[in-house]
Amino acid sequence: MALIVQKYGGTSVGTTERIKNVARRVARWKAQGHDLVIVVSAMSGETNRLIALANDIQANPDPRELDVVVSTGEQVTIGLLSMALQEIGVPAHSYCGWQVRVTTDSAHGKARIQSIDEEEIRADLSAGKVVIVAGFQGVDELGHITTLGRGGSDTSAVALAAALGAEECQIYTDVDGVYTTDPRVVPEARRLKTITFEEMIEMASLGSKVLQIRSVEFAGKYRVRLRVLSSFEEDEGEGTLITFEEDENMEKAVVAGIAFDRNEARINVKGVPDKPGIAYQILGPIADANIEVDMIIQNVGENGTTDFSFTVPRGEFQRSLTILRDVQAHIGAAKIDANDKVAKLSIVGVGMRSHCGVASTMFRTLAEEGINIQMISTSEIKVSVLVDEKYLELAVRVLHKAFSLDQED
Amino acid sequence: MALIVQKYGGTSVGTTERIKNVARRVARWKAQGHDLVIVVSAMSGETNRLIALANDIQANPDPRELDVVVSTGEQVTIGLLSMALQEIGVPAHSYCGWQVRVTTDSAHGKARIQSIDEEEIRADLSAGKVVIVAGFQGVDELGHITTLGRGGSDTSAVALAAALGAEECQIYTDVDGVYTTDPRVVPEARRLKTITFEEMIEMASLGSKVLQIRSVEFAGKYRVRLRVLSSFEEDEGEGTLITFEEDENMEKAVVAGIAFDRNEARINVKGVPDKPGIAYQILGPIADANIEVDMIIQNVGENGTTDFSFTVPRGEFQRSLTILRDVQAHIGAAKIDANDKVAKLSIVGVGMRSHCGVASTMFRTLAEEGINIQMISTSEIKVSVLVDEKYLELAVRVLHKAFSLDQED
Repeated sequence: MALIVQKYGGTSVGTTERIKNVARRVARWKAQGHDLVIVVSAMSGETNRLIALANDIQANPDPRELDVVVSTGEQVTIGLLSMALQEIGVPAHSYCGWQVRVTTDSAHGKARIQSIDEEEIRADLSAGKVVIVAGFQGVDELGHITTLGRGGSDTSAVALAAALGAEECQIYTDVDGVYTTDPRVVPEARRLKTITFEEMIEMASLGSKVLQIRSVEFAGKYRVRLRVLSSFEEDEGEGTLITFEEDENMEKAVVAGIAFDRNEARINVKGVPDKPGIAYQILGPIADANIEVDMIIQNVGENGTTDFSFTVPRGEFQRSLTILRDVQAHIGAAKIDANDKVAKLSIVGVGMRSHCGVASTMFRTLAEEGINIQMISTSEIKVSVLVDEKYLELAVRVLHKAFSLDQED
Repeated sequence: MALIVQKYGGTSVGTTERIKNVARRVARWKAQGHDLVIVVSAMSGETNRLIALANDIQANPDPRELDVVVSTGEQVTIGLLSMALQEIGVPAHSYCGWQVRVTTDSAHGKARIQSIDEEEIRADLSAGKVVIVAGFQGVDELGHITTLGRGGSDTSAVALAAALGAEECQIYTDVDGVYTTDPRVVPEARRLKTITFEEMIEMASLGSKVLQIRSVEFAGKYRVRLRVLSSFEEDEGEGTLITFEEDENMEKAVVAGIAFDRNEARINVKGVPDKPGIAYQILGPIADANIEVDMIIQNVGENGTTDFSFTVPRGEFQRSLTILRDVQAHIGAAKIDANDKVAKLSIVGVGMRSHCGVASTMFRTLAEEGINIQMISTSEIKVSVLVDEKYLELAVRVLHKAFSLDQED
């Protein structure tokens, strides 16, 4: 008998039928003698509906009031799930963020959890009740409603698991775990039994949207065992356990998986005077316009000039170019070369640290297929390359095979 | 410069366009130098949508959880209205029931307000902000969300006006005041400049659904000046002021208005043994089945038997008859005569107290039109009659003329 926190996302509670399915699954865990705290998101589509209402009124809705409006989505789900549990004879109590005092800072729309008051939750659990908590929301010191930002329900679940010292935090989603790569691209893609936190963070930030990255960081910080499971299969199986590398003694594969992201556009500023402060002069105006820059590369220059490259989300491509035309004149750059038909592909694995040759295997494999690499960027546990978008699927398939990701580890 | 509480109902905030209209109206009042506290309902249709979701899960939803779900409707509106005010340059802050501590008892779905914490509201008003409060909802001593029942937003507004000592509580609705009768039936129906609380309560309970009756009682108890106004006209005019009879020195008309209700069904239990306890034996099982009885009449009996009549809502007619068939055998009543094609019509006015002849004028007028009266019931300020439904419109029209209700008072 253990204390388990389970989180069900928007598609898992997207209809009243699905909410009933979640209730039956929770009841099965309860029947095994576990104490359960359930965190839920808004029914799928609901948050977007609420944001659309707000946008009808204000192009840039007041952040405090937007939180008041959008936090209702999760509030509806907690009530409905509690009813569904009671309907099948499982006692349950629902709580909004402010009721169990999920205290956050006052950064509306992207608030950070500071503390959770566990007293009432413990009392309910002792009384045999399932406790249901609205994800994504909290309350600041002044009693104003806050939200944690998109995907914040994962973070709510991890924070609750940390505060309650739960045995495990189970994230139920529409996939049954973390895969070596997207099975729609590589049918041989295999579900990983375990993945380390560091790998998971790289996979998540690289476009493998299984978990919200902040929740993974949070879990790492507070040493919460996270497990990703499917809410759409009758038997959820074992999913993928996200482990602390240091804690686990198992032989790790060199490469855990391949992530990719089509939402990239490349901008190459050529013939830039090679002097201090030039990177800031180029990226400063981009950052001021709230455009998120992903890869950044600057090569050693020659003849007093250098080339400076970076990538931005595709939706920001035109806006970035407009900004850069001003910058170009100002810094005296020779020309701007840009391309929004590119994709980023990354191999990720903590095993890389001790195995040299991973990058060279990657480059050789791509070269053998005639795929040109436009940009390269590396970290301790990943190698990312930018390639022409039309070669993406091919590149993922050949690399999946080259690193034997289709073989059981 | 006065403190005014305004309440806008579901149709007044039914779309984002209408919410913007409400914001412009509030801004006009604010520009006149008033302090404003605004109470809003859920957008029309929203409460029903939420109840339907709950009913999808539980035929009889858990009352605590139903309150969690349905209270989100008002929460969405307060956020949107606050945005709409800020969009036109009027500073505003929204509050849920729990945030300004509208403390209620724990009777979920029909909670009663016990206290309101005015501190934060006063601070916002002093800072020049418009304060927006979610109607219909509160929080109990344990911190659970409660709701006040259908139409509870009116009660929220009156309670806030009482707690804050507001100059006036203005109820904005889809009609521009209280009329002498329904203008759809009598085109000559006239808007009343004033109506007394007692008359308003009789009009409200008799099917004139302008205000929720509990809010009127509440206003009477705490001496809150209530005004009914239209939110659909550019210039709201003066609406109808609901006065305390004792406070106003004006000459009152004998009859203030005519109310009617088609939702009536008559049941007549004939040949009942005329002995103590018989009323209870008939109505007890009806009350146990949660059927609300309206008019009740028992005449003096003869030959040891009497007739016992009462009315129930039309939707409960068949269920009532089923129950009564058992009762009939048990008490030995001769027969049951019943009719669900009846309507109740009432003339209301505090002036009746000092003017005899009101009832006889009513009966004579109906007789002249050949309209048979099936049941009669009276109170100090009203006379109600039950007639065949097909004569209802005719009856209302001739009585409206007979009591000169089309003339300015």
